Amino acid sequence: MASIESIRFAERFNGITGSAIREILKYMTRPNMISFGGGNPAASALEEDVIADIARDVLRSDGKRILQYGATDGYAPYKEAVAGWVKELGIDCSAQDVLPVTGSTQGIDLLAKALIDPGDVVLVESPTFLGTLQAFKLYQAKLVPVATDEGGIVLSDLERLVREHHPKMLYVIPTFQNPTGRTLAADRRKPIAEMAEKYGFVVMEDDPYRDLRYAGEALPSIKSYDKAGWVVHMASFSKLISPGLRIGAAIVQEPIRQKMIFGKQANDVHSSNLTQAIVAAYLERGLMGPHVEAICKSYALQMNRMLEHLASFPDTRYTHPQGGLFIWAELPEGIDTLEMMPKAIDRGVAYVPGTHFYCEEGTHRNTLRLNFSNSTLEKIDEGMDILRSVVCEELKQR
Amino acid sequence: MASIESIRFAERFNGITGSAIREILKYMTRPNMISFGGGNPAASALEEDVIADIARDVLRSDGKRILQYGATDGYAPYKEAVAGWVKELGIDCSAQDVLPVTGSTQGIDLLAKALIDPGDVVLVESPTFLGTLQAFKLYQAKLVPVATDEGGIVLSDLERLVREHHPKMLYVIPTFQNPTGRTLAADRRKPIAEMAEKYGFVVMEDDPYRDLRYAGEALPSIKSYDKAGWVVHMASFSKLISPGLRIGAAIVQEPIRQKMIFGKQANDVHSSNLTQAIVAAYLERGLMGPHVEAICKSYALQMNRMLEHLASFPDTRYTHPQGGLFIWAELPEGIDTLEMMPKAIDRGVAYVPGTHFYCEEGTHRNTLRLNFSNSTLEKIDEGMDILRSVVCEELKQR
Repeated sequence: MASIESIRFAERFNGITGSAIREILKYMTRPNMISFGGGNPAASALEEDVIADIARDVLRSDGKRILQYGATDGYAPYKEAVAGWVKELGIDCSAQDVLPVTGSTQGIDLLAKALIDPGDVVLVESPTFLGTLQAFKLYQAKLVPVATDEGGIVLSDLERLVREHHPKMLYVIPTFQNPTGRTLAADRRKPIAEMAEKYGFVVMEDDPYRDLRYAGEALPSIKSYDKAGWVVHMASFSKLISPGLRIGAAIVQEPIRQKMIFGKQANDVHSSNLTQAIVAAYLERGLMGPHVEAICKSYALQMNRMLEHLASFPDTRYTHPQGGLFIWAELPEGIDTLEMMPKAIDRGVAYVPGTHFYCEEGTHRNTLRLNFSNSTLEKIDEGMDILRSVVCEELKQR
Repeated sequence: MASIESIRFAERFNGITGSAIREILKYMTRPNMISFGGGNPAASALEEDVIADIARDVLRSDGKRILQYGATDGYAPYKEAVAGWVKELGIDCSAQDVLPVTGSTQGIDLLAKALIDPGDVVLVESPTFLGTLQAFKLYQAKLVPVATDEGGIVLSDLERLVREHHPKMLYVIPTFQNPTGRTLAADRRKPIAEMAEKYGFVVMEDDPYRDLRYAGEALPSIKSYDKAGWVVHMASFSKLISPGLRIGAAIVQEPIRQKMIFGKQANDVHSSNLTQAIVAAYLERGLMGPHVEAICKSYALQMNRMLEHLASFPDTRYTHPQGGLFIWAELPEGIDTLEMMPKAIDRGVAYVPGTHFYCEEGTHRNTLRLNFSNSTLEKIDEGMDILRSVVCEELKQR
């Protein structure tokens, strides 16, 4: 008899433990925890009654089509609506170019599946979203970090690494980046699109936060400078309407589109027609504009409150985002946010240790990511007071 | 400048064209086509008003949770409801063992991702579902066909191949198989579970049709004989409630479960909470039993009508399923259903050429798969008359 413990899993899982994310999620769901750890919208930003009515309406009016198998390339009204929506944001595309995905996470996965053989180089911002790092590791990509500064990716470093590594892909979160909250400078966007075409690598532009702007002016996306199809733009409704619906879209042209469609056929056939129909109706009814305005007003207050608290942290540097969901902080040298975490948790506050956002695990131990969207002003006051006192105690013990 | 045509895709796409499925889908959506080609439920089986009310109700009652991020391992009420539902079917599992998936296609994909390195052997029934063949090819599995007869997998052939190839996995559709409509015999089910444990390979039991029974008695699933966790059962609501919602579940224990969860985190984070909540409420309200009874009554008439027509086809052998959605036919030697397809299409009838369901592409050219669920009795009469006359013309031309 073969013990189940003798099972041989695929090599792509070697070295993947998932424990960091798992630990964080475990903490976050504890009752009464003040969580600066996730990337969740505020509960008040979720319009359950509006979505309830829309869900009923679309099923009553187009239910036979919604409940039946759909095409892998998507539910037509959703494709139309998204093409219109991203046009407002500077991307000129047709409905054909809109590939619905089951959350933009699936878009990232499908693009990696299309491109990455084991050992292929993917360039990533340093730091970058830990979920995407995990996704690329499952494709056994070689992750190479690109230097960033206040304006995002440093172009000279990018070009140097492109020449050295001939990467298949660059992964970039251009607006209110996760985890730093920084925005890729206006004058670096076109050069990245041009570099992609010059050297022949794909830019995966992951842009879920771009409408969550509390200051400054909207910038054109990298995709808006794309001439030949080397840039794939990931649009998401998770931070704007609902993450629980799991619906986003890749804006992608041939020949990459066809490979993503093949991958999607074998992955989930198509994304839920119902969630596509709900978002299509939401956009068609013109609900997005006023809703974004309302949540931005509230998130701006929350962000500013958190920034005020950070000003009183000892020897702490932190980003000053113009939008998004996150602030990135660098505590005094010698403080280890991974070791400090259980103490903060004990006191009722959660965050994400910054080291998880780096390719080189275990580095940058004095950094952390703070989310403000999912906590009220009162909870931000309470939680940041606790966090500051935990930091001060750590400092004393050094 | 690099032309986009110079892009290097991943090796997993070598040899994958997807053209067969694409061609079929193209035909099926033509207006007025009588399609025996898909695996779609009847339009009349889709309860858009019932689902509309449920969608509104669950969003009103639990909308804050549904619209927020959920856990990768699922929405609790759905896990509970599915665990109860599969218990009725002979599987004893806890809610913990229920992993929601975005259609059972995703379950197949995640299990392949967990297990398959390039070159690993996967045993498949011959013939089997073409979508799954495509999914395995994307993992660069070596597909080895297992002989089948009227009772499904031939056990002696299975054991011979297991000893010869040391497969990672066996893929089996035990009930009303796709494409043949055949059911794995009762006395072959326990031996397959035992063989899996004896030799140490995973059985992926894909069982979307099992409730669509029009004759005979329900059989215990292979999973019901699983002691050690080598069998993963894929449950689906696509053929019972709606394929367009894209929600199913894998019944899976550790350590395979954890690997599938890691894969899912990087694939779509979690399946839509809304579709999970809808199906949970559907099951909790006791709607499944009466609905299945109603659609079975109608599908049985459709299947029998199609069988009656097949009796008048020249020298044609065909299966006599006790349920499901498909009949498998073997036309006289020398008829090529792939070549015949455009002629049938021209006359307004679509089917799937049988060769697409074999690992060894291009073989079994005289076979075809017929679906009866998505055509009314009148359309079945009309379409089968046309198909018979097309076959007769082919015969004359030999």
